[in-house]
Amino acid sequence: MADEAKEIPERPKENAEPAAGGAEGEKGPSKSALKKMQKEKEKAEKAARTKAEQEAKKKADEANDVSKEDYGELPLVRISTGVKHEKLEALAQKYSNDAPAEQWAEGEKGPQVVFRATVENARNQSAKLSFLVFSQQSATIQAVVAASDTLSRQMVKFAGSIPTESEVIVHGVLNKPKEPVKSTTIQNLEVHVNKLYILCKADSMLPLQVADAEGRIPAEGEENAVREDGKPIVSLSTRLNNRTIDLKANLNHSIFKIKHGVQRLFTEFLEERGFIGINTPRMLGAASEGGSSVFEVKYFNDKAYLAQSPQLYKQMMIASRFERVMEIGPIFRAENSNTARHLTEFTGLDLEMAFEEDYHEVVSLIEELMLFIFNGLRTRYKKESDYVRQVYQVEDFKLPEAGKVPRLHFSEGIAMLRAAGEEVGDFDDLSTPQEKKLGALVLEKYGSDFYVLDQYPLAIRPFYTMPSAETQAKYDPKEPNAGYSNSYDFFMRGQEIMSGAQRIHSASYLEQRMKEHLTPVDPKSDGLRDYVNAFRYGCPPHAGGGIGLERIVMLWLGLPNVRLASLFPRDPGRLMP
Amino acid sequence: MADEAKEIPERPKENAEPAAGGAEGEKGPSKSALKKMQKEKEKAEKAARTKAEQEAKKKADEANDVSKEDYGELPLVRISTGVKHEKLEALAQKYSNDAPAEQWAEGEKGPQVVFRATVENARNQSAKLSFLVFSQQSATIQAVVAASDTLSRQMVKFAGSIPTESEVIVHGVLNKPKEPVKSTTIQNLEVHVNKLYILCKADSMLPLQVADAEGRIPAEGEENAVREDGKPIVSLSTRLNNRTIDLKANLNHSIFKIKHGVQRLFTEFLEERGFIGINTPRMLGAASEGGSSVFEVKYFNDKAYLAQSPQLYKQMMIASRFERVMEIGPIFRAENSNTARHLTEFTGLDLEMAFEEDYHEVVSLIEELMLFIFNGLRTRYKKESDYVRQVYQVEDFKLPEAGKVPRLHFSEGIAMLRAAGEEVGDFDDLSTPQEKKLGALVLEKYGSDFYVLDQYPLAIRPFYTMPSAETQAKYDPKEPNAGYSNSYDFFMRGQEIMSGAQRIHSASYLEQRMKEHLTPVDPKSDGLRDYVNAFRYGCPPHAGGGIGLERIVMLWLGLPNVRLASLFPRDPGRLMP
Repeated sequence: MADEAKEIPERPKENAEPAAGGAEGEKGPSKSALKKMQKEKEKAEKAARTKAEQEAKKKADEANDVSKEDYGELPLVRISTGVKHEKLEALAQKYSNDAPAEQWAEGEKGPQVVFRATVENARNQSAKLSFLVFSQQSATIQAVVAASDTLSRQMVKFAGSIPTESEVIVHGVLNKPKEPVKSTTIQNLEVHVNKLYILCKADSMLPLQVADAEGRIPAEGEENAVREDGKPIVSLSTRLNNRTIDLKANLNHSIFKIKHGVQRLFTEFLEERGFIGINTPRMLGAASEGGSSVFEVKYFNDKAYLAQSPQLYKQMMIASRFERVMEIGPIFRAENSNTARHLTEFTGLDLEMAFEEDYHEVVSLIEELMLFIFNGLRTRYKKESDYVRQVYQVEDFKLPEAGKVPRLHFSEGIAMLRAAGEEVGDFDDLSTPQEKKLGALVLEKYGSDFYVLDQYPLAIRPFYTMPSAETQAKYDPKEPNAGYSNSYDFFMRGQEIMSGAQRIHSASYLEQRMKEHLTPVDPKSDGLRDYVNAFRYGCPPHAGGGIGLERIVMLWLGLPNVRLASLFPRDPGRLMP
Repeated sequence: MADEAKEIPERPKENAEPAAGGAEGEKGPSKSALKKMQKEKEKAEKAARTKAEQEAKKKADEANDVSKEDYGELPLVRISTGVKHEKLEALAQKYSNDAPAEQWAEGEKGPQVVFRATVENARNQSAKLSFLVFSQQSATIQAVVAASDTLSRQMVKFAGSIPTESEVIVHGVLNKPKEPVKSTTIQNLEVHVNKLYILCKADSMLPLQVADAEGRIPAEGEENAVREDGKPIVSLSTRLNNRTIDLKANLNHSIFKIKHGVQRLFTEFLEERGFIGINTPRMLGAASEGGSSVFEVKYFNDKAYLAQSPQLYKQMMIASRFERVMEIGPIFRAENSNTARHLTEFTGLDLEMAFEEDYHEVVSLIEELMLFIFNGLRTRYKKESDYVRQVYQVEDFKLPEAGKVPRLHFSEGIAMLRAAGEEVGDFDDLSTPQEKKLGALVLEKYGSDFYVLDQYPLAIRPFYTMPSAETQAKYDPKEPNAGYSNSYDFFMRGQEIMSGAQRIHSASYLEQRMKEHLTPVDPKSDGLRDYVNAFRYGCPPHAGGGIGLERIVMLWLGLPNVRLASLFPRDPGRLMP
């Protein structure tokens, strides 16, 4: 066992399973049965002899094994030896050709290092030589285990037989390969292993290979296809069913680094502008925002409902003088939609802010926010973005050239669609294909994959949406939902990533709009009473929006399915893992 | 109307309510009824005359009102005038005595400014003079509205009658008061108002005064008490029932700035150390962690369960090579506990990391994390911390002097309690009073309100907890849950804020522990199968913890109830607002 494992007890053995054995009857055995028993007895004796011989040989081998302390499985619990454990990336940099002071002379040995790693590949080249590839996340390095006076063939065999994905501790001497290693990310170094311990041994048969998970998912209708390099194109469901293996792939590490990056950039930009992060409840006493797409929770002897958005709470915070609030949190939608862009649980990036005069102050700020996120992704997460887009063969995301986001009045969008031969009414909501078409038209005209559609028809927006000044001026009680509203959607690659609006900050007008909305709600209902009252106690004019985080990730990278941007996606048919 | 409101339509009138009127019978009226009708007719005529006179006077007044364009209610929707809207804090700084270049000569007028604010106080001193206090969050400034040739008495009256909490736009000239204003936070400036418009008029009667919400909640058994300044001590339930008013108080702004601060510091520290933020699901296909304290969700035709922690998912991320992960998100606990420190929904600050040799690497990192948070709060949020502690008369939070966090073995904690006369078994879980007592003993001995209790008994920890090396060495299948484990709790002011442990990273040993745990779970069950399998595909040793955000806030500030650290708290009896 390892030097570092001294004083540490052996891993406890699993409870031995009791030997299987049926209850026999009392009747004496027949002649043929006796013969059979004799045969079995002889067989067992022979097996015992063989086993004893094997054990003796093993013992002798072990006794002769000069390396017996230098490899094996480590116990589950260890205490600190104080030995520094290196990071491969740092070693590669320290001993790169750009740092000549850190080099060692030709023919001399490099430094001895210790590191923890995953076995990405292991093979026995011969009885005297094994090759391994170790990885630390995306960094990989080649390793050699060569038999010598001080390194036994047993150890070589052990090393070359470690199942991939096992976690190990490696002791070795760094070496400069004569030619750069092409198959690993670290090309200027290799490791000559002298000790090798398994921390966690993986099964030898995995239901999905990590290397296969590095590829794209099949396109629609493309079943049982293979990649150019002959590897299988693994379906989305196989990946999701084996998500912890799938997530080991660098492809997924890249996607989820970017997802983290978006949240980081979102927070960074808004914090600098005085926004405060809030934590509003996910369990609500009533289905406040109405509609059928709400999940019901058994709440002791009562019922609760999962938040479809933090909308009402964000606004209540504005009424409570908070001025500028943001929130990152889960959003629940009980929509039975099995599309490539719907999830029943996703992450909302929400913001809400009081403004001085005109809601376009808020639209401008969110435009700036999105540009900040895009530019941050383009610079700080370039490697990851490039990698994923190369796998999916997707073009770069085009940003408006002068940094000025195209902002179209809804009527302008309709006009563009009609000019392109689309049939659509002045106040119709856009279908998904129409949205994508308009996105393509905007890209053609303005050279941007990102744009804003402003002044949506009042009739297709929620009750708390502020009708435009013109709509209010032309108010006709017979058609209370006619006209436009101070609301907007943001689009990436022709798909909606955010809905937002100026909200009604007058309690009495809000009550009126609740009643006359196309799907009226009761201002005095349990779920809305406190919300409406908040505006009776004074509230500045305000606007905001809710951004779907997974949609940003999906559309930034051009992924074909929003599930790929969720660690453990939830849809009407999937609640596991 | 205001110059800035030109071309803007009037606010739409609310739908008129139909006059109430019962259906009368067909029978002719009696004599006394006729007399009554005559009287009513006369009364109505008189009222009509009076009303007409009043309206005529009002019209005349309006015609004579030199200020009629300078005050009133603004429409709900406005377009930008481009006028700069000032922040009071910035003005106070710009024109402070430290910036002599920005001053104006004695007797001269200061600059004309425009700002949006909340009316914190308004009173008519006389027919010619009104005083107001305007606020922007915690900044307040005094304002004067004085009748003159260009400012009408009508406007003075209007200004002095604006209900508090109304949101307004103020135009005025800055003035240096002869003596510092004592009742406002800005003492070196006051405003001579020349235009004043209401953006959102508050009701004149509020169910709770913001000034009253600035005080503490009553202590236990202290009903209907009053503060030293004569203001009522408002109960927690009154506050929570009127939470949007309660939250307007600076007391609450301070608490929730600190809550945001903790999250910011948590993220800052961990990001710098390579942690990646993850978003794991809140709706689970099975009640993975067992126990009855899980909320059930109706999920289309199936059932889902709300996450009691991201425990299993955090670990699966480690198995997926993510090495260091963190998550901030809602946690749901269906515990019917109506205590001052339990919520059914709270915010979890979770982290999980692979380590090289010894789980104390993780314990040390979390200790550093907490010290970083405390020091960040102490410096960046000093004003807010001081303010809240002064209201609740709480002492400062004591940090360990040399920055070295007291870390006690569980048995040492037990010994200290026994030495202080407490009766407690070697492997008993501590009761809340015992925890508090131990906190007091540690404070006395080490001078720190923050400490760590390490090596909890195995029997009282969850199935995924790694038994200590000694426990594994002494394994006795007859007493599989005896001994200590590699687990720890973190405490603030004697109350637990975090539970954590080294987790079992071997699938076979995990299965064994699941079966032999005091409350066994089935490794092959729907909710656990994928989790256990994750460790079959290779996983480094890892440890982590889950911190209750509201508890940190509560205990940092010394608040008497955890609900005070939740914007909209949820407990078995409260789902609203």
